[in-house]
Amino acid sequence: TRQTRDFDENADLLVKTTLKELIIYIIFLIIISIVTFGMTSSINYYFTNVMMKLFLEQPDSNDMTFKDIGSIDDFWGVHSEPILNGLYWETEENATKPGYIYFENKLLGVPRLRQLRVRKGSCKVHSLFEKTITDCYDSYSYFNEDQSPFGIHQVYNSTDDKNPFVYSSSDKVKASIVDGTFSTYGRGGYVKNLGLMMAESKEIIENLKSNTWIDRGTRAVFFDFTVYNANINLFCQIRLLTEFPATGGAFPSWTFRTVKLIRYVTPMDYFVLACEIIFILFVLYYTIEETLEIKKHKLKYFKEVWNILDVVILLLCYICIGFNIYRVIEVNNVLDSLLGNINQFPDFDSLSYWQNQFNNAVAVMAFLSWIKFFKYISFNKTMTQLSSTLARCAKDIAGFSVMFFIVFFAFAQLGYLLFGAIVEDYSSFSNTLFALFRTILGDFDFVALESASRYLGPIYFLSYVFFVFFVLLNMFLAIINDSYSDVKSDIAEQKSDFELGDYFKRGYAK
Amino acid sequence: TRQTRDFDENADLLVKTTLKELIIYIIFLIIISIVTFGMTSSINYYFTNVMMKLFLEQPDSNDMTFKDIGSIDDFWGVHSEPILNGLYWETEENATKPGYIYFENKLLGVPRLRQLRVRKGSCKVHSLFEKTITDCYDSYSYFNEDQSPFGIHQVYNSTDDKNPFVYSSSDKVKASIVDGTFSTYGRGGYVKNLGLMMAESKEIIENLKSNTWIDRGTRAVFFDFTVYNANINLFCQIRLLTEFPATGGAFPSWTFRTVKLIRYVTPMDYFVLACEIIFILFVLYYTIEETLEIKKHKLKYFKEVWNILDVVILLLCYICIGFNIYRVIEVNNVLDSLLGNINQFPDFDSLSYWQNQFNNAVAVMAFLSWIKFFKYISFNKTMTQLSSTLARCAKDIAGFSVMFFIVFFAFAQLGYLLFGAIVEDYSSFSNTLFALFRTILGDFDFVALESASRYLGPIYFLSYVFFVFFVLLNMFLAIINDSYSDVKSDIAEQKSDFELGDYFKRGYAK
Amino acid sequence: TRQTRDFDENADLLVKTTLKELIIYIIFLIIISIVTFGMTSSINYYFTNVMMKLFLEQPDSNDMTFKDIGSIDDFWGVHSEPILNGLYWETEENATKPGYIYFENKLLGVPRLRQLRVRKGSCKVHSLFEKTITDCYDSYSYFNEDQSPFGIHQVYNSTDDKNPFVYSSSDKVKASIVDGTFSTYGRGGYVKNLGLMMAESKEIIENLKSNTWIDRGTRAVFFDFTVYNANINLFCQIRLLTEFPATGGAFPSWTFRTVKLIRYVTPMDYFVLACEIIFILFVLYYTIEETLEIKKHKLKYFKEVWNILDVVILLLCYICIGFNIYRVIEVNNVLDSLLGNINQFPDFDSLSYWQNQFNNAVAVMAFLSWIKFFKYISFNKTMTQLSSTLARCAKDIAGFSVMFFIVFFAFAQLGYLLFGAIVEDYSSFSNTLFALFRTILGDFDFVALESASRYLGPIYFLSYVFFVFFVLLNMFLAIINDSYSDVKSDIAEQKSDFELGDYFKRGYAK
Amino acid sequence: TRQTRDFDENADLLVKTTLKELIIYIIFLIIISIVTFGMTSSINYYFTNVMMKLFLEQPDSNDMTFKDIGSIDDFWGVHSEPILNGLYWETEENATKPGYIYFENKLLGVPRLRQLRVRKGSCKVHSLFEKTITDCYDSYSYFNEDQSPFGIHQVYNSTDDKNPFVYSSSDKVKASIVDGTFSTYGRGGYVKNLGLMMAESKEIIENLKSNTWIDRGTRAVFFDFTVYNANINLFCQIRLLTEFPATGGAFPSWTFRTVKLIRYVTPMDYFVLACEIIFILFVLYYTIEETLEIKKHKLKYFKEVWNILDVVILLLCYICIGFNIYRVIEVNNVLDSLLGNINQFPDFDSLSYWQNQFNNAVAVMAFLSWIKFFKYISFNKTMTQLSSTLARCAKDIAGFSVMFFIVFFAFAQLGYLLFGAIVEDYSSFSNTLFALFRTILGDFDFVALESASRYLGPIYFLSYVFFVFFVLLNMFLAIINDSYSDVKSDIAEQKSDFELGDYFKRGYAK
Ligand SMILES: [Ca+2]
Repeated sequence: TRQTRDFDENADLLVKTTLKELIIYIIFLIIISIVTFGMTSSINYYFTNVMMKLFLEQPDSNDMTFKDIGSIDDFWGVHSEPILNGLYWETEENATKPGYIYFENKLLGVPRLRQLRVRKGSCKVHSLFEKTITDCYDSYSYFNEDQSPFGIHQVYNSTDDKNPFVYSSSDKVKASIVDGTFSTYGRGGYVKNLGLMMAESKEIIENLKSNTWIDRGTRAVFFDFTVYNANINLFCQIRLLTEFPATGGAFPSWTFRTVKLIRYVTPMDYFVLACEIIFILFVLYYTIEETLEIKKHKLKYFKEVWNILDVVILLLCYICIGFNIYRVIEVNNVLDSLLGNINQFPDFDSLSYWQNQFNNAVAVMAFLSWIKFFKYISFNKTMTQLSSTLARCAKDIAGFSVMFFIVFFAFAQLGYLLFGAIVEDYSSFSNTLFALFRTILGDFDFVALESASRYLGPIYFLSYVFFVFFVLLNMFLAIINDSYSDVKSDIAEQKSDFELGDYFKRGYAK
Repeated sequence: TRQTRDFDENADLLVKTTLKELIIYIIFLIIISIVTFGMTSSINYYFTNVMMKLFLEQPDSNDMTFKDIGSIDDFWGVHSEPILNGLYWETEENATKPGYIYFENKLLGVPRLRQLRVRKGSCKVHSLFEKTITDCYDSYSYFNEDQSPFGIHQVYNSTDDKNPFVYSSSDKVKASIVDGTFSTYGRGGYVKNLGLMMAESKEIIENLKSNTWIDRGTRAVFFDFTVYNANINLFCQIRLLTEFPATGGAFPSWTFRTVKLIRYVTPMDYFVLACEIIFILFVLYYTIEETLEIKKHKLKYFKEVWNILDVVILLLCYICIGFNIYRVIEVNNVLDSLLGNINQFPDFDSLSYWQNQFNNAVAVMAFLSWIKFFKYISFNKTMTQLSSTLARCAKDIAGFSVMFFIVFFAFAQLGYLLFGAIVEDYSSFSNTLFALFRTILGDFDFVALESASRYLGPIYFLSYVFFVFFVLLNMFLAIINDSYSDVKSDIAEQKSDFELGDYFKRGYAK
Repeated sequence: TRQTRDFDENADLLVKTTLKELIIYIIFLIIISIVTFGMTSSINYYFTNVMMKLFLEQPDSNDMTFKDIGSIDDFWGVHSEPILNGLYWETEENATKPGYIYFENKLLGVPRLRQLRVRKGSCKVHSLFEKTITDCYDSYSYFNEDQSPFGIHQVYNSTDDKNPFVYSSSDKVKASIVDGTFSTYGRGGYVKNLGLMMAESKEIIENLKSNTWIDRGTRAVFFDFTVYNANINLFCQIRLLTEFPATGGAFPSWTFRTVKLIRYVTPMDYFVLACEIIFILFVLYYTIEETLEIKKHKLKYFKEVWNILDVVILLLCYICIGFNIYRVIEVNNVLDSLLGNINQFPDFDSLSYWQNQFNNAVAVMAFLSWIKFFKYISFNKTMTQLSSTLARCAKDIAGFSVMFFIVFFAFAQLGYLLFGAIVEDYSSFSNTLFALFRTILGDFDFVALESASRYLGPIYFLSYVFFVFFVLLNMFLAIINDSYSDVKSDIAEQKSDFELGDYFKRGYAK
Repeated sequence: TRQTRDFDENADLLVKTTLKELIIYIIFLIIISIVTFGMTSSINYYFTNVMMKLFLEQPDSNDMTFKDIGSIDDFWGVHSEPILNGLYWETEENATKPGYIYFENKLLGVPRLRQLRVRKGSCKVHSLFEKTITDCYDSYSYFNEDQSPFGIHQVYNSTDDKNPFVYSSSDKVKASIVDGTFSTYGRGGYVKNLGLMMAESKEIIENLKSNTWIDRGTRAVFFDFTVYNANINLFCQIRLLTEFPATGGAFPSWTFRTVKLIRYVTPMDYFVLACEIIFILFVLYYTIEETLEIKKHKLKYFKEVWNILDVVILLLCYICIGFNIYRVIEVNNVLDSLLGNINQFPDFDSLSYWQNQFNNAVAVMAFLSWIKFFKYISFNKTMTQLSSTLARCAKDIAGFSVMFFIVFFAFAQLGYLLFGAIVEDYSSFSNTLFALFRTILGDFDFVALESASRYLGPIYFLSYVFFVFFVLLNMFLAIINDSYSDVKSDIAEQKSDFELGDYFKRGYAK
């Protein structure tokens, strides 16, 4: 945008141009803030919260909730009792019509169970154990996936079938790729839709259970459904995932995506729409400006950080605008097809996923726009002082950071190897990095380390804190402190720069 | 008050005047402290605590307490069992006389249930869902409020009534405006008083339940009552609010206001009264002094910060004195009318609310009086040094603060948009601001962010901590540190100021 | 002890004397450490822990433990079930002999119940309520104590008595004064001993309950007993206190004092005894030395801080020695009288209390002895540097501390008045002081403040943190930092002082 | 390795040599990282976690888990119900074949119960109590150990035996020495193997219980077994230890060792094997290099810290290599003998213990290798600056540390003596040291101290925080800060050193 080095003739003109640009930019920021804050509201949190409490924290008759699932039995208990009770709210008076969750939230279509399996013999038993242990089921991976039919007992609605559970390919299921705790799961699977009413669904689940639908080969079971609340016009796409890793046992996890797929309903929505249109105009204006500048400065343009930031923001804007248009069209399609046939499973997964990515992109775009604001205020003398302090100690800090990260990395590797098998915070290398970082901020669990290893735990902790915390962090502070003093005295010597504040003072004095 | 610039002739006279003023001010502070500490006692906390444990933490037969309420069924369960058991303590021997809560606390009059509703069709269902979803109930707001009668089944004491539940206007109910979690609720509502005895109240509640008093239109139910403990002469005004938001589900919240509405009973109370009278005399004295000064200096008076503080303190004093008189009169009126007819609901809501505001005003007044104390001790050399350090780096800190708050605000907006729908600490913009502030102090929940978004959560957290914590806060420290060194050396050069301490030394030396 | 200023002739002599003194002092410190560490062991903690888990955390049939007691009913439930089960371990085979707690710990004599009451009408009901509320029972204080007999129903073992529960004066009961949550309780009370066997005790408790031993006048019930473990030779004196304040409800608290009343049993104990005798010799030696110095320097002696510390340590030594002798005699007396008649309640309260005070005095004495060690090492150059840094900035820090504590106090008063009735951390002035101090260290509960007052809570917290934490603490750091630089440069200029290290170097060089 | 002082002729040559060494070292580090990360995986944590949840957190019919065990009855309850249910998974269809834990994990052989006891009369009852208390059982120690047979009732499978429970010597049992909470336990004991099937084991446990296998003499019971998961090729060696200390009661503790005893199974394992061979070649290379240097420099070699580090790393490497070979042989032996006779208890204790030590040794070796990396980067100017800052303030910091640790130690002794009997964090001297260290980082429990001693608790805490935290730590910071400024100005004056960066710049410029 502005290229201060081009004009040097007249300070007044510079200030006027700058002021104009600043005011336009502030309007742009206000529009962005209206659009982003208009997109969300704290009711989103409460909607997610209500759904989470209902599906994750309602206990079954053994006081077991979805969050507590630890074995196959727990899985069947939770899925046949509290989760079905949460989904189906048929009232006594109206027992043949599907009820609304909490009387307000419509379950769209039917829920879907999807299973992913590994092949028997997908791993090799060591020769010593070959006689004792015959079968081996590896952790899930694309290459180990079992796609053959299974199940031998009598099955619901298909008494004569020998292998009643059949794999559906990813083209048919079109589930999205899911990143679980243990593996990244594929798009196909053994699929089973539940019914529209409680009784039907209960029968299906009991049938699956009695036919040992879940066995040693099972690695993950997904339970997917979508809920719509018309009062507040929000969709909640819910995925309850239970993983059955190669270790035995079961580990539950979940995704609740509360998204506003239908965006323009209330008058307020239309006001936001108006702001969005103004936003598009702004984007076009800045696009033209940047294009002109690129033409003028060619490759030199990309050497300034602020310009690169401009381009990144504009790209994000175009991506968001593009998705917004796509979303309006796609939602209509999906809902049309769904409302024609309510007995099917409506796949809001990818739609809600992309809506979420869209929200994130808008959020990042707004964040970067705020950071860009510094370009305009870096005019002021104090700002210069602070930023030149940072610039001056940049080299020292870089050198220091290299040292810091080598030590930090060495400690992380040590911690992961020493405590990884016992302490959750150290169970993977990335967790260890985070755990060590949190330790710097005072959030640590000394007792867990001590109980993992009575002597190595405290020694490790004390030496980490001593080196990283006391020595290195204080050194860091010293670097900044020292540089600041230097910059201060430098600036005190040099004659005062031109400042925006002076301009106003002069104007005021006139 | 004191205007040092007026006399410059004689240091001794100045010191004597200052000393006199200081001593008078210390007496004033002592009086204020007696009055404020005399107003309260730690028994207030225990009284609130006993009431909270009784009404919020007693479980019903499903182990559900008021705090756990999550649905309409939970609401009825808690209100018909533990809350009624907490209110009515009829003993076997004396079954016809109302019992006292914990044998000590009298329930004043009867409790009151009040409901607020929204109109059916207060919001618009999107055209895609119009066929499936017929009704829409918006979030509560003044414009959506339902004021028409409702209820169709047979109702207690009014068998022939078709719409037994009738709206009472705010003029009739005179409830105070309540700021709930989801909305700000109006003063009217559908009102139902309970009875003086357990059996009667239980019948009323069961009747309401069987007539679905709470349905999809319900947005909030208030349960109000007041308890008086004669042993310690304290009122506890209790409001249990259950909100039924448009998301479905139920969210409980509560207000317990322990106040001393009848203030002068014990000898100690009369001693406080005496202090209050002295306090009034002081206020008059300072009023005259300030008036004289305003007359003398005119508008110049308001240019000094200390003078503005004086005026604010005096205004607060007059407000408190005024309210104190009003309270004595009003309490007598309310109690007289109540004790004439014990079957009504006694409204202590506004009285306890204003008593609370009075307590807060007194507290702030006492706080400001302490801060004013700095005016007298800023005499000392070390103090000058510290305050001039602050003054010197004020501009730097201001510039720095602008930078800090832009980054802080940008991070808050980003956090709210990214995690607002899942993490409670980020569920509204103000919560996000607080959460980020608490992160600086080391009080954060990294795991919640990570589970909300596996990659964005840690990236967001690390970048926030890095920029805001390490860079900016350390910079802040550097600014203060540097300025302090400068001030130190400046002061070392200049000749010693006049000091109060010197005066004493000289007096001692004589 | 050493008075450096007396001899100035010869550095070598000075060093030799100092070294001799230092070595003697180190031996003294070793003896003290043996004595103090010999007095205790981590088995003490596990003994207390086992007793606490047994008496405080065992639930009754309503899942209520002693810690949860909240009403009179809870009190009776807990005292008749889990506490009696914890006390009496009669086995099936040996039903007529008292069993040992966990088969290892002997209950000494019988437990005792003691009640303290207030008089009916000990407070005045305000005229407005006089007709409604007839009785008033004040909080407990010495002046309100009820000492008249009470109880009207038929009572265990005294069917013809009209007022079966009689007050025993403090001379007879000789309980110690107890500092409860609500009041400080006197030494007398209504006393009831339990029996040696479960059945007898259960009958007594049921009798008390059916005769409403606890009523509106009750303010505190003490349950006292003592347990002895011969394996590890430890007494545990236990007091379970339930307070029934004027607010209604009940608040439990407890004291577990694990003490080694019989000190010399095992060979290790006799080794400690030997060290104690050496310790006494040291004390005599230092007493003589200090007496000589006092005679020589007269009042000038008390002008040096180190000398005052010497005197304090010696006084503590004499107190400890005196108590140690008293304890040996007293324990023999108490145990003799007890073992003669096992049906009485053995009062180990004052003995264990004084043993505890003795332990504390020994601990403080050992701590001060360590601090005195600085007198010898303050020789070294680096030490001088650090201590002169402190000395140099002492005045600044003092001035700063005054400012700090005025603001701190003002915030504490404000917090107590604003949140005292709702938040536990702010429920008394001292709690508020601690809560604010802990906030500086990052241990705070923001959510409690926010829920106590939606707007004042965050404002209060933010302004406190901003002023106290950021401004004042950083200022504090700046003061120290600055003074240290000054001292460093001063020392660099002055020629090197005499140092102990040099002496050794020279010796090594020879 | 490199000895810079030897060649001074040519900077270019030096740089080239350094670069070569650096690149070789980076390859070495990569190999080490592959080997160490290849040894472990986060599946280890989940395997441990699944086993821990199964054996430690499954409740019995009284809702008691292994973690909650507090008495002998609890012990029998937990060991006969949830633990046996966790071990034996016999399905209905296949009731005669041992089932796999969670259908995936094979229990190797049978579990073993082992008891350690102390002799009756191992301690002396004080003369005062001799008549009342007859028996005394001391804490466990090697000298007090009871090795005589015990048990008098009818016993399983040996009806005619009078003393059915017989001690097996350490030579026979060959258990490893275990460091419990209360004592260090020996290698022998009273041993009882369970069966292969649930019914048999249950009978054995009930028999032990009815014959009071656990009585006053019992001090520790070990429950040992090993589980193997063929899917992920991991062993989990589990030891559940319940201690019955002399205080009465019971304290559970546990060890779960998840180890990869069979290392080379999958292709990935063979890749790691290849890396290990490369690693061995590297070790040989560095061994030769260091040997040459030692020959050249003789004793001077050991004066440089880096050289000592080299030797330590090499020694660790040889130890690891040696163990790796031993492990392969030993595992084959143990498994062979086990799979021949599945009715015996397979002792994986020492194997898993040494495997654990091997893992730790490898981890430390990798850590030290990273630290050695500093030798190469200490070339850079900024690095020099930082390390010379540390060097310059080393003496000051040493002096300061002495002061710090005297105060720290004095506070630790005081805290241990004052609160040791009540607060867990202060229950032993080492715990107190850790607790005080954690307090510096903001992790403390003020309320526990306050409830242990109402006045001494807060006084102790406040004075500790004031002295140690505010005064000493800030002083520490000041030392570093000040030294850094000095070093900075020194370096600014001296002419620029040779730098690696310059070399590259020059190369780039050519
Ligand atoms: Ca913290």
